[in-house]
Amino acid sequence: MTATLADLAAQLRIDSIRCTTAAGSGHPSSSMSAADIVAVLFEKYLRFDFQRPHARNNDRFVLSKGHACPVLYSAFKAAGAIDDRELLSLRKLGSRLEGHPNPHVLPLVDVATGSLGQGLAIGVGMALTARMDGLPFRTYVLMGDSETAEGSVWEAFDKASHYQLDNLCAVIDVNRLGQSRETELGWNVEAYVARARAFGWHAIALDGHDLNAIDRAFAEAQAKKGQPTCLVCKTEKGRGYSLIANKDGWHGKPLPEDKAREAIGELGGERNVRIQVAKPDAVKGARQDAAAALTLPTYEAGEKVATRKAYGDALLALGNARPDVVALDAEVSNSTYSDEFHKAHPKRYFEMFIAEQNMVSTAVGMAVLGKKAFVSTFAAFLSRAYDQIRMAAVSNATIHLCGSHAGVSIGEDGPSQMGLEDLSMMRAVSGSTVLYPSDANQTAKLLAQVMECQGITYLRTTREKTPVLYPATEAFPIGGSKVLRHSGDDVATVVAAGITLHEALKAYEQMKREGLTVRVIDLYSVKPVDMKTLHKAARETHGRLVVVEDHWAEGGLTDAVLEAFMGERERLPTVVRLAVTKMPGSGKPAELLSAAGIDAEHIVECVTSLVEGSPRGAARGGTPEWGHTHA
Amino acid sequence: MTATLADLAAQLRIDSIRCTTAAGSGHPSSSMSAADIVAVLFEKYLRFDFQRPHARNNDRFVLSKGHACPVLYSAFKAAGAIDDRELLSLRKLGSRLEGHPNPHVLPLVDVATGSLGQGLAIGVGMALTARMDGLPFRTYVLMGDSETAEGSVWEAFDKASHYQLDNLCAVIDVNRLGQSRETELGWNVEAYVARARAFGWHAIALDGHDLNAIDRAFAEAQAKKGQPTCLVCKTEKGRGYSLIANKDGWHGKPLPEDKAREAIGELGGERNVRIQVAKPDAVKGARQDAAAALTLPTYEAGEKVATRKAYGDALLALGNARPDVVALDAEVSNSTYSDEFHKAHPKRYFEMFIAEQNMVSTAVGMAVLGKKAFVSTFAAFLSRAYDQIRMAAVSNATIHLCGSHAGVSIGEDGPSQMGLEDLSMMRAVSGSTVLYPSDANQTAKLLAQVMECQGITYLRTTREKTPVLYPATEAFPIGGSKVLRHSGDDVATVVAAGITLHEALKAYEQMKREGLTVRVIDLYSVKPVDMKTLHKAARETHGRLVVVEDHWAEGGLTDAVLEAFMGERERLPTVVRLAVTKMPGSGKPAELLSAAGIDAEHIVECVTSLVEGSPRGAARGGTPEWGHTHA
Repeated sequence: MTATLADLAAQLRIDSIRCTTAAGSGHPSSSMSAADIVAVLFEKYLRFDFQRPHARNNDRFVLSKGHACPVLYSAFKAAGAIDDRELLSLRKLGSRLEGHPNPHVLPLVDVATGSLGQGLAIGVGMALTARMDGLPFRTYVLMGDSETAEGSVWEAFDKASHYQLDNLCAVIDVNRLGQSRETELGWNVEAYVARARAFGWHAIALDGHDLNAIDRAFAEAQAKKGQPTCLVCKTEKGRGYSLIANKDGWHGKPLPEDKAREAIGELGGERNVRIQVAKPDAVKGARQDAAAALTLPTYEAGEKVATRKAYGDALLALGNARPDVVALDAEVSNSTYSDEFHKAHPKRYFEMFIAEQNMVSTAVGMAVLGKKAFVSTFAAFLSRAYDQIRMAAVSNATIHLCGSHAGVSIGEDGPSQMGLEDLSMMRAVSGSTVLYPSDANQTAKLLAQVMECQGITYLRTTREKTPVLYPATEAFPIGGSKVLRHSGDDVATVVAAGITLHEALKAYEQMKREGLTVRVIDLYSVKPVDMKTLHKAARETHGRLVVVEDHWAEGGLTDAVLEAFMGERERLPTVVRLAVTKMPGSGKPAELLSAAGIDAEHIVECVTSLVEGSPRGAARGGTPEWGHTHA
Repeated sequence: MTATLADLAAQLRIDSIRCTTAAGSGHPSSSMSAADIVAVLFEKYLRFDFQRPHARNNDRFVLSKGHACPVLYSAFKAAGAIDDRELLSLRKLGSRLEGHPNPHVLPLVDVATGSLGQGLAIGVGMALTARMDGLPFRTYVLMGDSETAEGSVWEAFDKASHYQLDNLCAVIDVNRLGQSRETELGWNVEAYVARARAFGWHAIALDGHDLNAIDRAFAEAQAKKGQPTCLVCKTEKGRGYSLIANKDGWHGKPLPEDKAREAIGELGGERNVRIQVAKPDAVKGARQDAAAALTLPTYEAGEKVATRKAYGDALLALGNARPDVVALDAEVSNSTYSDEFHKAHPKRYFEMFIAEQNMVSTAVGMAVLGKKAFVSTFAAFLSRAYDQIRMAAVSNATIHLCGSHAGVSIGEDGPSQMGLEDLSMMRAVSGSTVLYPSDANQTAKLLAQVMECQGITYLRTTREKTPVLYPATEAFPIGGSKVLRHSGDDVATVVAAGITLHEALKAYEQMKREGLTVRVIDLYSVKPVDMKTLHKAARETHGRLVVVEDHWAEGGLTDAVLEAFMGERERLPTVVRLAVTKMPGSGKPAELLSAAGIDAEHIVECVTSLVEGSPRGAARGGTPEWGHTHA
C-alpha cells in the first residue's frame, strides 16, 4: 500500500471538509460517513485507468448518493486525477466539480447523480454490458440509506438478482440520518439485509468504519458467484469530528472556518496521501462483431401498417446491422413490437418487466458504456420514468425512447393507457429530439437516423394500422416536414402528424369536393421543427394554420408550431388548435377521435369557419398586410 | 349467505366472459384468476353501501390491477349496483364501464387504475385517512403479480408498515402469467411472502381458488393488529375454462362467441346470483373539528422572503383554519417549509420520506376521501411522480402540489436539483391549475385560492429570498396577472414570473435611465393565463413581447403566452423568449441567471435590439398595421 488506509480515510474526510468550507455549501457530513468505504474501495479493489476513464475494461463506480461527491472528488485527488487547487474550486462557476457529479464537465464520472435512487439501476446496465461484452470489469454502486425509500432502488435490486449479476456490488452507507430527521429504518441494518436477501441478493451487514471488515466484505463480494452482493454498512454521519458525528442538523451544511480547522485538527491534520489505483488488464476476448449493411424494412403504398409495427421491424433491422444495438422493454414487447428484436437477438434484448424507471436508468448505464440503447413501452408509461429521462439528459447520455399507443386513437382501453402528455414531456428534455411518424416507411427511415442522434430521442408510435403514404425511397430528414397537398390557391394550411395526418388528408378530399383547397403538412419532426416550411405555408395560405394533434392542448404539436414563429422579425399567423381538451373515455378509435374533435369532420368545420369568419371577410382572397409583415 | 360462494365465483367468471366477448376486447383471463378472491371479499368481508358509495364509513376496495375490471363490474352486478344491460355495455362509447375503472363516469369506484403499481399507495392514503378520522372502515387493495415489479408498490409496502396500517389489506393475485410471458417470480409465492415480510408486513401464502382458505386469510387479516396484512394468492389465469386456464397467449383477449358459450357451459351455465353486501355501521365518534377563520401570513413591502417560506407559512395558516387540510412531504420539509405545518399539526402531517410516487398516490387516496391534500418537494423531484399525477387527473382527484427550488436560481447544487421542466409537465395535466408567484404575499393569497380549486393544482416556489413587491391587501385572482410598470409610450412588454420578474424590474429601471420605458407583467397565473392583459399589452406596446423564464425553452411561460394569442381573429405579436437553453452547472444564483441569459442585463439587451431592430425601423414609434389587426 502507498499509505495506510486509515491515513487515506482521514485525508478524504479532511479534503471533504476543506472543499465544502471553501465553497460555502455542500455535504461534508454525508461524505465523512462514506470515507472509509471509499478509501478501501479505491486503494484495494477498484481497477481504473484515470488517464483513460472510458477504457472498456475499467471498473465502474457510481456514486448514487451524489451529494456526497466531496469524498469522491477527494479520492480523485488522492489518485492524482485532479489537483488540490481544482478540489477547492468545488461548486464554483466553471468548475468541473459541481455540487453533484456531472459528466458534462467531468469525464471521470460516467453519469450524473443527485436525484436519489437511480445509481443502482444504472449499475445494473453497466453490469449487464460487461456480461454482454464478455468483459471482467466490476461495477460498484455507493448508495445512501435515505434513498432506499425510492421504489426505483427495489426495481434495480430485483433486476440485478433476476439477471444474477455477480459482477455488481452495492454498498449502502447507513448513516442513520436523512436531511430533516432520522431515516425510517435508522441503524436497523438487519432490516436492510432482510430486504436485500428477499430481493435475491447476497447481503452482508458490517461496521462501515472498520477498515478490515470493509476489506473482507469487498473480498467476499468479489468471490460471490451467481448473485449480486450488497454491503450494508453501519456508519456515522460526520464521522471523525466529534461536534457533528452522528448528530442531527448537520445535513448539507459546510463547516465554518474555525470549526473546519478544529475538525482537521481532530482528524490529525492535513496530509498528502497519494494512492495508485490499480489499472485494469488490457481487454481480452471481448466480442467485437462487425457491423453489417443496414437493410430497412419497406412497405407498399396503400398497405395498412401500424407505425408501432414498423418500429419493431426497423429495430430488428438496426439490430441485424449493428452489434452495439440493444433493446429494452417493460413487458409489453408484443404491443410495441420490440419482440421481433427479442426473437432475433435474445442476448441483446433485456426484459425489464413492468418497471419503467429501472428500464430507463439501465439503458443509461448501457449507453454511457457505448451501447445504442432502444427503450420501448406505452407512451403513457414513459411518464413513470420522467425523472430518469431528465437525469439521462443531465448525464449527457444518448438513449432512444419509443412510446407506443399514443393518444385517444388507442380506443377501448381508455385514458389510463393513452399517451397524451408525452410530446410535452419529451420536448422539455434538454437537447431532445422528438419525432412522430405517420407511416411505416417514415417510421423506419426516422429510426435509422435516430441511431445517429446524440442525446435523448423520442419516437411516438400509433396503435392503429394506418395506410402507407410514402414510397420506401422517400427521405425524411430530422428537422424536416412533408407538404402532402398544396396548390396556388390554398386558403389555409392544416398541420398534423401521426394519426391526425390521416384525418387531415380525409378532410382535404372533402373540402376539395366543396371547392376549398388547403395545404397539408406532415410535421413528423416535432423537435427540431421545420420553421422554413411553416413560414412559407403561413405566407402562401393567408396566415391561417390549423394544427391537429392527438395530445393534450398544452406542450405538443401546436406549441411547437407557435414557437416556430417566434423571433424578432416574425409575426405569428392565425393559429387554430384542434387537440384533446376533455378526459376521453372508452370507445372505438374513430369515435374517440370524433369525440375529441380531432377527426376529419372537425378539421373541415374548423377550416371552413376560419375562412368564412376571416375578419376582413376576404374568405378566399389574400390578406395583404400579411404579405408585408413577411416581406 | 344469499348463494353459495362457488356459485357466485362462477357467475363472476361467466359475466366477465360475457361482457368482454360483447365488447370484443378486454381481459377475461385476468378477471377469472381473481374471481374467487372477489367473491369471498364482497360476500363476506366488504362493508359498503352501494346507495351511498361516498359514505364515510364504507370499506374501500381498490382494484389496482385495473384491467381486471370485468370481475369488479360483475361483482357490482351481483350486488345489484348495476344491471346486466349496463354490464354488457362494457368499453362502449358513453358507457360508465370503461376499459379500466374511472370515477369520472362511475362513482362506484374512488380512483382510476390501469397504470399498474399505484393502487396500494392509494390504499395507504385511505387507511391513513381512517386512522386520522377515527373511522373503523378497512381498505382492501387487489394487485396483480406483474405489477409488483413496479418500485412504487414497494414504496407503498414500506409506508404501510411504517405507519402500522392494520386497517389495510393487500391481496396479490399470483396468476403467474404477464402480458407477454411468465412473470419474474412465477408461482414462487414464498418469494412474495418473503418480500412482504422484509418490508414489515404480515403475509400469508394461500391457494387463491380455495374459498375456505381465502375466507380464513381475510379473517386473519382482520384480526391482525399493528401490521398490514398481505394475502399472496396462488391462482390460475383464465381459471374455470380449460382451454385458456393457466395457458400463455390469452392476456387481454376476449373469447370468440363460440368459445364463450363453451366456457359458460364448462362453468355450469349462466346464473343470477344476487348478494347483499353488508352496509357499514353509521359513523360514530368520528372527529369533526370545526373550521376557524383563515388568517394568512402577511409580509412588509421590501422585506426579503423566499416564496417557499411563504408557502410554509400559508400552509400552516390553512391548517390552522381547516381541519381537513393535510400535508405530505418527501423528507425535505425543512427546505419546502412544510415543516411549519408538521410542528403545528403533527397528526395531519405525513412524512413520506424520499418516495415521491407513493407520496402523490397516498395524497390521492386521502383526497378522494375528502381531505385537502397539500404535497411538497423539490420541483425537480415531482417529475418522479408524473405518472401518478397524470393518473390523479384521470381519477378526477383534487390534490395540491408545490414544487420548490425551481430553476437555475437555486445555485450551487447544480442541474440535478433544478426544476426546469415542471411548468411544461404540469401544464400538460388535464384540468390543471399552474401558478408561479414572485412574492410572499402573492404566494399566500394564491395558496388560499388553491384550496378551493378542483383538480390538480401546482404552485412553483423559489429557493432564493426575494423582495416583497405587493401589499398584503392585494388580490391575485387565478387567471389574472399584474401590470407592475406601464406608461403611455411603452416600447415593449416584458412578461415574467417568479424569480425572473425581479430581473425584469431591474431591467425596467436600467432602461428607464436610458429613456426607454417598457411594460412589465407579472404572469403569476401560468394556467389559466390572462389573455386580456396580454392582448392589451400587445396592442399598446407595438406588439412586442419579451418573455423571460427560469425554465427550459419548451412548454413553459412562453408557450403559455403564445397560446394566449391563438384563435381565429388573433394575430400574434412579436414574441421573443429568454429561457434556459443549455445545461446549467453550479455557481451563485446571479451567475447562473446570467449564464442562462435570463437576468436583467440580458432583458435590457433583448428589448433594446428588438426595438432598434424593428423591421420598419419605427424604433419608438408605433406599428400602424399592428393597430389594425386588433382594431
